[in-house]
Amino acid sequence: MTTPYQLYYWDGLQGRGEFVRLALEEAGVPYVDVARGKGGMAALKASLDGGKVDHPSFAPPVLRAGELLIGQTANILQFLGARHGLAPRSQEGRLWTNQLQLTIADMVAEAHDTHHPISTNAYYEDQKKEAKARSKDFRAQRIPKFLDYFEGIMERNPGRGGYAVGSRLSYVDLSLFQLLDGLMYAFPKTMAKLAPSYPRLHALHAKVAQRPNIAAYLNSTRRIANNETDIFRHYPELE
Amino acid sequence: MTTPYQLYYWDGLQGRGEFVRLALEEAGVPYVDVARGKGGMAALKASLDGGKVDHPSFAPPVLRAGELLIGQTANILQFLGARHGLAPRSQEGRLWTNQLQLTIADMVAEAHDTHHPISTNAYYEDQKKEAKARSKDFRAQRIPKFLDYFEGIMERNPGRGGYAVGSRLSYVDLSLFQLLDGLMYAFPKTMAKLAPSYPRLHALHAKVAQRPNIAAYLNSTRRIANNETDIFRHYPELE
Repeated sequence: MTTPYQLYYWDGLQGRGEFVRLALEEAGVPYVDVARGKGGMAALKASLDGGKVDHPSFAPPVLRAGELLIGQTANILQFLGARHGLAPRSQEGRLWTNQLQLTIADMVAEAHDTHHPISTNAYYEDQKKEAKARSKDFRAQRIPKFLDYFEGIMERNPGRGGYAVGSRLSYVDLSLFQLLDGLMYAFPKTMAKLAPSYPRLHALHAKVAQRPNIAAYLNSTRRIANNETDIFRHYPELE
Repeated sequence: MTTPYQLYYWDGLQGRGEFVRLALEEAGVPYVDVARGKGGMAALKASLDGGKVDHPSFAPPVLRAGELLIGQTANILQFLGARHGLAPRSQEGRLWTNQLQLTIADMVAEAHDTHHPISTNAYYEDQKKEAKARSKDFRAQRIPKFLDYFEGIMERNPGRGGYAVGSRLSYVDLSLFQLLDGLMYAFPKTMAKLAPSYPRLHALHAKVAQRPNIAAYLNSTRRIANNETDIFRHYPELE
């Protein structure tokens, strides 16, 4: 039997691929992290090449599921969530889950731009001054605005169990874990100072980390360590 | 009978709300643009208030459809597309359409950041120098990268009729119209120079503008004029 899923994402980065990895790991389905194997980079590039595939993606992550080739993180998660019980079944629940994931994606993009506010094509060192200014705004304005929102969502979720949506784990919970994890790595002082304001998000972070499949994953070599080529980077001068 | 849809979006801006307006106008369904009416701002704010609605959005646009309250542009379009024949019926087609819309959303966010690269909370005038640097990169690197991608998608679409997906109009076509329209307003010189590279995108722009419902809309007072409080802004110094 062929492995059901092939994930195409840059080797060496958690990046946006990590949101997909966490869903696959939680679901406990076999997958190949293509770019980490032999010839993987060529395969990754092919997934972006309209001469080679029908639905080329603008950027990784890309997931192959049999005949389907799916790009854009939230789109992949919507697909996996429906297939593996990581999203509500009702239309209302599906829309709400997707909406929250897209808001997480917006914050991830802003977190990236803290170290690359001028150009993704230039070195961090060449836009450090601007990165300091953008990071200051991100720490003071954007982190509280986004996390207040997500904490409020959890507070008002009528479902039990401390999840973001309803009373069962969804891919949004996995993504909130990753978001918080990345923010704590990149901005440890800010996040420590703000921690008392976000008890539910921190409880969720701990809870997700302890789920058997996630705990095993985090302790494996499949989990790539945080590093300064990633979306969440720890540059002490930015805090 | 109640109007089937209420759209909550800032008055005076095309913004992200415009992608939703174009879908509603093309579908020919009645809707109320709530914030443009009496008491509209209070209603808009309520749609973001978790004390007042079950599923508060982080930011507009928000669409009310009966009992459903839906946020995030691509999420709203996915919902409307399925309901009003503005998206393919197959799972593969739906995923692909959503993927393209999310890539459009990524470019829209980058277009916004050309004039606000440091902080959305600060004035443009206070980040003009950085805006010039980011716009230079956007014009030289990002516009070609994104538009090459979308032009390639159209070129390789096996469907007839000059649409982005298959052989029928989808919400992605409406959004590509709006994307191109905004870019031509904000960066007229750049877009004029690049126009010969994007014949399919420009043909689509013309084709969408001529659809009866869209043409009527564009000629109505419902279409808000481009302006410098919007996502796409024309600042001559940024080009």
